[in-house]
Amino acid sequence: MHVKDQAARARQAAYALAALPLASRHQALRTIQDQLKRHATEIFAQNNLDLQQAQAEALAYPLLKRLKFDEAKLNDVIAGIDALLGLPDPLGHCSLARELTPGLNLYRVSCPIGVIGVIFESRPDALVQIAALCVKSGNAALLKGGREALRTNRALMAAMAEGCRGILPEGWATLLETRDDVNEMLAQDDSIDLIIPRGSNAFVRYIMDHTRIPVMGHAEGLCHTYVDADADPAMAVRVVTDAKTQALAVCNATETLLVHRQIAADFLPSCAAALRAKGVELRGDAATQALIDCLPATEEDWASEYLAAILSIKVVDSIDEAITHINHYGSHHTDAIITKNPEGQQRFLSGVDSAGVYVNCSTRFADGFRYGFGAEVGIATGKLHARGPVGVEGLCTYKYQLIGSGQTVEDTVTGAIRYTHRDL
Amino acid sequence: MHVKDQAARARQAAYALAALPLASRHQALRTIQDQLKRHATEIFAQNNLDLQQAQAEALAYPLLKRLKFDEAKLNDVIAGIDALLGLPDPLGHCSLARELTPGLNLYRVSCPIGVIGVIFESRPDALVQIAALCVKSGNAALLKGGREALRTNRALMAAMAEGCRGILPEGWATLLETRDDVNEMLAQDDSIDLIIPRGSNAFVRYIMDHTRIPVMGHAEGLCHTYVDADADPAMAVRVVTDAKTQALAVCNATETLLVHRQIAADFLPSCAAALRAKGVELRGDAATQALIDCLPATEEDWASEYLAAILSIKVVDSIDEAITHINHYGSHHTDAIITKNPEGQQRFLSGVDSAGVYVNCSTRFADGFRYGFGAEVGIATGKLHARGPVGVEGLCTYKYQLIGSGQTVEDTVTGAIRYTHRDL
Repeated sequence: MHVKDQAARARQAAYALAALPLASRHQALRTIQDQLKRHATEIFAQNNLDLQQAQAEALAYPLLKRLKFDEAKLNDVIAGIDALLGLPDPLGHCSLARELTPGLNLYRVSCPIGVIGVIFESRPDALVQIAALCVKSGNAALLKGGREALRTNRALMAAMAEGCRGILPEGWATLLETRDDVNEMLAQDDSIDLIIPRGSNAFVRYIMDHTRIPVMGHAEGLCHTYVDADADPAMAVRVVTDAKTQALAVCNATETLLVHRQIAADFLPSCAAALRAKGVELRGDAATQALIDCLPATEEDWASEYLAAILSIKVVDSIDEAITHINHYGSHHTDAIITKNPEGQQRFLSGVDSAGVYVNCSTRFADGFRYGFGAEVGIATGKLHARGPVGVEGLCTYKYQLIGSGQTVEDTVTGAIRYTHRDL
Repeated sequence: MHVKDQAARARQAAYALAALPLASRHQALRTIQDQLKRHATEIFAQNNLDLQQAQAEALAYPLLKRLKFDEAKLNDVIAGIDALLGLPDPLGHCSLARELTPGLNLYRVSCPIGVIGVIFESRPDALVQIAALCVKSGNAALLKGGREALRTNRALMAAMAEGCRGILPEGWATLLETRDDVNEMLAQDDSIDLIIPRGSNAFVRYIMDHTRIPVMGHAEGLCHTYVDADADPAMAVRVVTDAKTQALAVCNATETLLVHRQIAADFLPSCAAALRAKGVELRGDAATQALIDCLPATEEDWASEYLAAILSIKVVDSIDEAITHINHYGSHHTDAIITKNPEGQQRFLSGVDSAGVYVNCSTRFADGFRYGFGAEVGIATGKLHARGPVGVEGLCTYKYQLIGSGQTVEDTVTGAIRYTHRDL
């Protein structure tokens, strides 16, 4: 079947999904859990074949680790679906109810977006998570995973599809397999409502440049932690160390540390010691180099998402300088301030133009699971529609329902009826 | 000043606007009202020059009518600003408050999108409305109006800018004047967050194809009214007549009437008589032609937004056939059902994939003023971000604020702290 036809089928499925009660969507999610357990041996076997080929192709260790789908990963995705089952229905939620004129009531009601195309990296668990998020939110999905995970993804998809036959409409989820498929998908603006690409900035740009379909980019995370003059130095060391080292190849790790000049001499030496103990390479501006032993940071460092055990450090004269630096070099993902000063907190929260603005905690908290969303389809760094971790709510839109009893606009012109605009 | 620099200045202005209290934004709105009154003579004089030139160029009458900016239009825009002043602050609204773990609280707080580029037709009142919506919502704006209204727009912009100096940051609104300016604006994806084009489908597509900036299209309205078997025929005649004739060249007028076969013989003759009395040309399918005197409707008719006194009519066998027709040919703008049957209402509300789904009322109600939004920047027919009439809320996004006291992710791994995910 051509992608064009798969997308058209997904469109029809989406119409059916939008009307499906929560009970049926939940039945599908529980069936997916059962099917994954039932077909586990087969899925692990296919994953082993993927892993063998990846090893033969000398894939880097972190990628192999992501590619692996074992008992632990299976338990994780099943737990993720449990969390989704525990969340309220994102559909049918009324965010505005207003009488326009007596007997004519306006309701803004949440509903699925429709057909969503997701392109993600070689993590087979992502396939299940995204499919489950789409089921919960009543969306149909076209899913393209990494080439390296193809056998695993086929086995996962087959298990899910087999179980959901008769519960969900045909075409509720479709696995795409090649790059050509992706290019064909990008042309289906009649059938697809949203493309979610997960990957590098360059990849997200490529997608944006090659489709008319709206794109919710999940791209770079160039996160900052700013240690203000009024920070508790011990807390700052703990939080910065976590933000940089708790995981390295992740979009919510802090890549640049900004430090107020007044606290730099107190704070930087102990922070540097803690980071070095974790094997972090430090690169600082001139003021930093005067206080600790480190490599010089260049203009390129301020613009780099290292995804590695490297931290760039800059001393600033004010909170405003920190905010300006973050808005200029950052990726509008997540940025934190460490300070006891309430005014400084407020200035930072309002001035930093990022999806996540944090006070006295680690940037590593930026995550759909940690926010209590059950799962996430990614972290959006754009400003339109969903921002930050995107869970089921981010996969919904709304409709305006207007329920009347024969009202006409002409009646409002003649004065026969009058607008009341009374919230219900 | 180049558009690139104007956009960069708008970006800086946006950062300042985001932190501006409601009192200052309201002061600016009241100043705009005063300034428009104070400079009315001058504005009307410039508008007369625009009108003279448009007449010399033989602009069509409906366009001339839109171009005119007189005392009545001035009063309208001032009243529109009054309505905006009466609305609550769209910024700082908290739509989620959750304890992630004791002492670590997550808040989802509304904030401005940032810099918005709006391209609109030759209605000078639109310039004031859009600028006022942006002020209320704390966004900076680049505004490109129709060529025909340039003198009027310059006079309006000058009056607003003069008054807001010292209240709003430099660059809060900038008038662009040429098509080249628009093309340059489309390249400023570093500085501009959103483009809102108002115009034809072809125009919106052109914009989408030439920019990486997200586009919120305000394009065609191909609206339907479906008269179900269980409709009250007299109500249906009144509502359909209003939906087609209350105004003609508007996106929320009904262009296609769908009628259930069971009611067609009862309903169509009286409806046709009412529409003909208003000068509407009728085009019907074979079943319609068998019941009333009308021209034949072709495939092209089902896909046409007439914006004129023409209505296409099709007889259908079921509500599902009506829904399928609407989802296939419609523009996902606004569609109505006339029926007394609650089950049919529900089926229509859930099955029709449009920004507005109406029961027993005229499609002409699809409008920001009528919804009580004070004003609208347009009506969005896409599904991402805002849908339907876009008022101040549609010009806002949100940030996640996470307020802690030194929490790290490592502490959640060791079990030192545990997620509670308790809504506050």
